[in-house]
Amino acid sequence: MAKKITIALDCMGGDRSPQVVIEGADKIASTNFDAHFLLFGDSKKILPIIGHCRYLKGRFDLIHTEDFISSDEKPSTALRRGTNSSMRLAIDSVKDGRADVVVSAGNTGALMAISKVVLRMLPSIDRPAIVTCIPNAKKQATVFLDMGANVECSADVLFQFAVMGSAFARAVLKISKPTIGVLNVGSEELKGHEEVRNVAEMLRNSALKDQFHGYVEGNDIAAGTVDVVVTDGFTGNIALKAIEGMAKMVSGLVKEGFRNSIWSRIGYLLASVSLSKSIKAVDPRLHNGAMLVGLSGVVVKSHGSADVLAFSNAIKVAISLVENKINEQIIHELQQQNHAK
Amino acid sequence: MAKKITIALDCMGGDRSPQVVIEGADKIASTNFDAHFLLFGDSKKILPIIGHCRYLKGRFDLIHTEDFISSDEKPSTALRRGTNSSMRLAIDSVKDGRADVVVSAGNTGALMAISKVVLRMLPSIDRPAIVTCIPNAKKQATVFLDMGANVECSADVLFQFAVMGSAFARAVLKISKPTIGVLNVGSEELKGHEEVRNVAEMLRNSALKDQFHGYVEGNDIAAGTVDVVVTDGFTGNIALKAIEGMAKMVSGLVKEGFRNSIWSRIGYLLASVSLSKSIKAVDPRLHNGAMLVGLSGVVVKSHGSADVLAFSNAIKVAISLVENKINEQIIHELQQQNHAK
Repeated sequence: MAKKITIALDCMGGDRSPQVVIEGADKIASTNFDAHFLLFGDSKKILPIIGHCRYLKGRFDLIHTEDFISSDEKPSTALRRGTNSSMRLAIDSVKDGRADVVVSAGNTGALMAISKVVLRMLPSIDRPAIVTCIPNAKKQATVFLDMGANVECSADVLFQFAVMGSAFARAVLKISKPTIGVLNVGSEELKGHEEVRNVAEMLRNSALKDQFHGYVEGNDIAAGTVDVVVTDGFTGNIALKAIEGMAKMVSGLVKEGFRNSIWSRIGYLLASVSLSKSIKAVDPRLHNGAMLVGLSGVVVKSHGSADVLAFSNAIKVAISLVENKINEQIIHELQQQNHAK
Repeated sequence: MAKKITIALDCMGGDRSPQVVIEGADKIASTNFDAHFLLFGDSKKILPIIGHCRYLKGRFDLIHTEDFISSDEKPSTALRRGTNSSMRLAIDSVKDGRADVVVSAGNTGALMAISKVVLRMLPSIDRPAIVTCIPNAKKQATVFLDMGANVECSADVLFQFAVMGSAFARAVLKISKPTIGVLNVGSEELKGHEEVRNVAEMLRNSALKDQFHGYVEGNDIAAGTVDVVVTDGFTGNIALKAIEGMAKMVSGLVKEGFRNSIWSRIGYLLASVSLSKSIKAVDPRLHNGAMLVGLSGVVVKSHGSADVLAFSNAIKVAISLVENKINEQIIHELQQQNHAK
């Protein structure tokens, strides 16, 4: 029998909370009978929604609090002021061992700051990173970090990201020896700034040397050239949002193209089933759910604008991280690095 | 009567040279009767192609040289060794005033290094940048720089990029007061690293203050939130290549989707005319041609893998930059900045 997994949910984070959060949990409860939920938030708002959820009944505890962290609150303020907020209480429950993992669609900076203080870092990790899976042309996923937790990163920090990315790919994608690339502006050894050249040198001389592919470029993210792409949070955040923006524009143009004439509308109807099957591979909702990696506790961030399907996917990611003992794998991988020194 | 424009072409640069270069020039010659070409390269390879070009006859001078810069040659070697290369001689012709502009699909690093030494910088510009137009959701173009000339940029250099980007948007897109955004990981004032915060502060206190929108994020590039997006060459190169990679993947998936079943194939035929009309807006070939801006001379870089349509578009960009006196506009804009100080 599979072990029960307890998932703490910050019910008040995200653009359409608490509805999307509760209905996302209900969707998971409908198929996963080992999931139990701790719901943190305003019971006046939560209970009416639970009322029409069929699968959550008897599968949750509701911890009432009226306080919450708003999306534009500064991380430092959220940390100081929000000790009774839904986000903080949800993270506390992971610290106390009442929950195995926490999922929030709220303020990323606040989630990061509170998690760092409450959960602390894993041994020999200096900074947490945000790691996610991006669909690629090989119909697999590219593990990508850092999505934006750290604007500036030393070579040591980038090296730790490579180790954590490798463990993440092993745990979540079941790749036994994930290949690793460092994002750069060219593949030649002399390209890029100092941190990038130094982390490449460190990887070439580490226990990860057989997994290290070398530098990769922006187009390699979607091409799936390597399993894990490592970069600093400034470049990572901008690259991912640039991709997102272009995808949105292209899908808008395609929709417009289909609407242009009666023939194109008929054409769309005929093609839509097999088209949507292909396009599903890149539906961002099915890739929602990023991990705040490097913390002594599993924290999953959902996109703030997630819908029910997207939020439920973030819960799926959370469950898979717990089942695959992600942090034990990271610690193991770090120990191997230390032995190799 | 319009003034004749002389365009120097590095016939030996790019993946499919000299064919694509010569045929691209012929395509331009078929509609633009003011264009005259200086063709630099190996006459044994060039003459057979010119033989079947209808419009180039009497509209070119061929300057024979067997030497060329290969795509993987180091910029420093190219600079030292390649004084008789097609690329170098083409740039020399701009320096001497024999040509108004040079277009090359060759090695970007070498083109940059040779141009800097031969043409020198514009007064009060420290570093050249690579600037291009990216199609956006408003069916206009976003001026984007730096695409990868400078891995690290001080706030002063980023400020000069903003000035040059503004002049470029004015000259090429005919926008009288282009709006400017600095690429960052969030729109709040305190986000990002020091250079980014400092250039924002400089712009707020400059003659460009009315045009300065503030920070923009990766998704704003395709959204067309501002007319000019400014960033360093590391982030810029990675963001653009990330977009390129994702666009390639999505178009592959769409094509696959249409091929899946007989119904989707029929659907494609019915929809294709109006679809291709919509998608044409983002055809990268129609946006090929980036300017190496900041030099005392106009240098245009074509994508190395350009086909005839794409290369001819790079020539169109070159002509438009000359017609619009891009460098005079940049100098004028710089003088206004200095007056404002």
